[in-house]
Amino acid sequence: MALKSFIEVHPSSHFPIQNLPYGVFKPEPGSVARPGVAIGDYVLDLSAIAAAGLFNGPILNNSGCFHEPNLNKLLALGRPAWKEARATLQKLLSSTEPSLRDNESLRQKSLIPLSKVEMVLPIAIGNYTDFFSSLHHAKNCGTIFRGPQNPIPPNWFHLPIAYHGRASSIVISGTDITRPRGQGPPAGNSPPPFGPSVKLDFELEMAAIVGPGNELGKPVDVNEAADHIFGLVLMNDWSARDIQAWEYVPLGPFLGKSFGTTISPWIVTLEALEPFSCEAPKQDPHPLPYLAEKISKNYDISLEVQIKPAGQDDSHVVTKSNFNNLYWTLTQQLAHHTINGCNLRPGDLLGTGTISGPEPESYGCLLELTWNGQKQLSLNGTPRKFLEDGDEVIISGVSKGNGYNIGFGTCSGKIVPSSP
Amino acid sequence: MALKSFIEVHPSSHFPIQNLPYGVFKPEPGSVARPGVAIGDYVLDLSAIAAAGLFNGPILNNSGCFHEPNLNKLLALGRPAWKEARATLQKLLSSTEPSLRDNESLRQKSLIPLSKVEMVLPIAIGNYTDFFSSLHHAKNCGTIFRGPQNPIPPNWFHLPIAYHGRASSIVISGTDITRPRGQGPPAGNSPPPFGPSVKLDFELEMAAIVGPGNELGKPVDVNEAADHIFGLVLMNDWSARDIQAWEYVPLGPFLGKSFGTTISPWIVTLEALEPFSCEAPKQDPHPLPYLAEKISKNYDISLEVQIKPAGQDDSHVVTKSNFNNLYWTLTQQLAHHTINGCNLRPGDLLGTGTISGPEPESYGCLLELTWNGQKQLSLNGTPRKFLEDGDEVIISGVSKGNGYNIGFGTCSGKIVPSSP
Repeated sequence: MALKSFIEVHPSSHFPIQNLPYGVFKPEPGSVARPGVAIGDYVLDLSAIAAAGLFNGPILNNSGCFHEPNLNKLLALGRPAWKEARATLQKLLSSTEPSLRDNESLRQKSLIPLSKVEMVLPIAIGNYTDFFSSLHHAKNCGTIFRGPQNPIPPNWFHLPIAYHGRASSIVISGTDITRPRGQGPPAGNSPPPFGPSVKLDFELEMAAIVGPGNELGKPVDVNEAADHIFGLVLMNDWSARDIQAWEYVPLGPFLGKSFGTTISPWIVTLEALEPFSCEAPKQDPHPLPYLAEKISKNYDISLEVQIKPAGQDDSHVVTKSNFNNLYWTLTQQLAHHTINGCNLRPGDLLGTGTISGPEPESYGCLLELTWNGQKQLSLNGTPRKFLEDGDEVIISGVSKGNGYNIGFGTCSGKIVPSSP
Repeated sequence: MALKSFIEVHPSSHFPIQNLPYGVFKPEPGSVARPGVAIGDYVLDLSAIAAAGLFNGPILNNSGCFHEPNLNKLLALGRPAWKEARATLQKLLSSTEPSLRDNESLRQKSLIPLSKVEMVLPIAIGNYTDFFSSLHHAKNCGTIFRGPQNPIPPNWFHLPIAYHGRASSIVISGTDITRPRGQGPPAGNSPPPFGPSVKLDFELEMAAIVGPGNELGKPVDVNEAADHIFGLVLMNDWSARDIQAWEYVPLGPFLGKSFGTTISPWIVTLEALEPFSCEAPKQDPHPLPYLAEKISKNYDISLEVQIKPAGQDDSHVVTKSNFNNLYWTLTQQLAHHTINGCNLRPGDLLGTGTISGPEPESYGCLLELTWNGQKQLSLNGTPRKFLEDGDEVIISGVSKGNGYNIGFGTCSGKIVPSSP
């Protein structure tokens, strides 16, 4: 019989007892941020649970990691601690366990309606890396930016290409994004045009949160890489295509990306996603030994992007994709990242890159969906080539199980005009 | 008459009372790291000076910033605090001021021979950005990697090109660098070769340390950008040219750089460098308004790189360059970085990119000096195309004044073999 909580959870909820994603929240404005897990329409305050002595396993007892304003300390403890926390919390929240269920005072203190709390960034992000792991995205972008002859660079099939992103401008879902200003590609011999970006885009991504890191000079084996990943979030890697197109040769994307990156507040653990793991695509050519893994896993996570234009009541689905469209796995990404000795640290963020599927309806950004503005989308009659001021972009992700969902909630952000 | 310290400073010293560069040190292994300034052959322990109540100006009195294990708190306070600290310290160390000079117990406590201390990273680096601001370097690299037709991309003269680097692998001078492993460019249809890099290189750079940052969405005006820069360090942006050449299209350098970046321990302030400021090169085409500054400054800083092969007693000069070879100024770099709204934070590091001069003897890396291994250097008879295991690379930098130097000391690192 399926595990069930004493807290009522609607079957359509993203947050049943099988999920228990981690976030950091303030119960009210101005209060101290603390870790929590989502359960149904509530967040369970883990600092209250720790203070009540209910994290009584050998690793987490007195670890102090639930009295922190971020999850980095829990991340650093590694998989044994994460398993212990999950076992403790699933027991505590189950319908058959009285210790929290029958303790009204502790319930009052520790279970807070999600609608009342403010979510904040769950981790202190030291470094943010963004990969480029969807073949369809790579092919479409290559075709648009460099033409249809050999759109995919020859290195793409041999290594998970990535670049360093900007960590300081990563914000939590719900934060407004200011339209960036910058230079675009010049026409002929004119100087480059300067002003607010006219090709502002979203990118549908997910990102892995790094747990224990590795020492500088000591690569992580691809078959052990999963133990370095705590979980996943949804991510919107906002992109200004005009700025990006002009600046990115030869050193890669910079200001076209660094004005803001939004992540969802809830980190869904790899443990919770395990029932939705599936075989990763066959790789041809066979990867080099350091990237050849014994078990090559993807996850079946349905992804969707909606846009809600300013002044409209409804949002409109613009694409549907799936995490399993990735060619390179999370573990290959992580192993590749460290093969040169680069050190990862708890809380580092590894973006997957835009997750596009093969069909035009599954492309992960407007650049692809409107083919760089050559076509337009209709949002129930409102045309869109790129994002307009006031547009809100809402990403959601969910794995649908037998009678329950493992969901990520949403990752949203609204475009506000450039500052004068 | 020139300012003089009661501490004897040899005329060839990099650290007279006119300099007073900031670093963070441990008086002995295992002790707590604390800020200091270099003076002659000594470091002045600023935590001891603060504890003695000698930072008695209105900003720094009780600021707590000298009881930190890094300089970030001082950086955040901004130029008024930096001016106050400099005035306090120049007075305290001057030959005419008795408060430290005649207090033997405080002198014993606060002045420690440089030879006895361990220097550590002076700042917690949130984000590291590397620019590409030497025209000669851009031209040489473009010619080597992409051929002699149009070696400089058309955007180069319109904006200071940059990419995000890896912050976690930045290490302090003296740290060994493990030769990275990775994929290199394949020959014909063979799979890419994998193993320890066979084209390991140094890059002669300097880097600006960001002081007060800016809020997300609020660019910094180019004419106010200098107030956001605390000072400069020497930097060696170690590069694996084979890994870089294969991976960098289309998203820029990644594993070819992220295995290690070395900075010098002493941050020389812009105040100390002011007597060595000079006019920046005339820019043609004229930059866009957001990059057009009222005063466009470079600094006359002589730079030199030496290599000391394993088992040899002597190091050999391989290049001599100057900071004033940069085309884009530090302030233009910083203003460009924020024009899209990207937020900088205290302690962020902005590398200049390799500082090559026009003459072959002034090229800033082996890629240029040996033209990608087509020529070889002679280190007093020992040939070199790229770095060998055991090679120590030593960068030094100094501005020579009338009777005194404003110096950076050295920035060094030794190559150790790849881990098996």
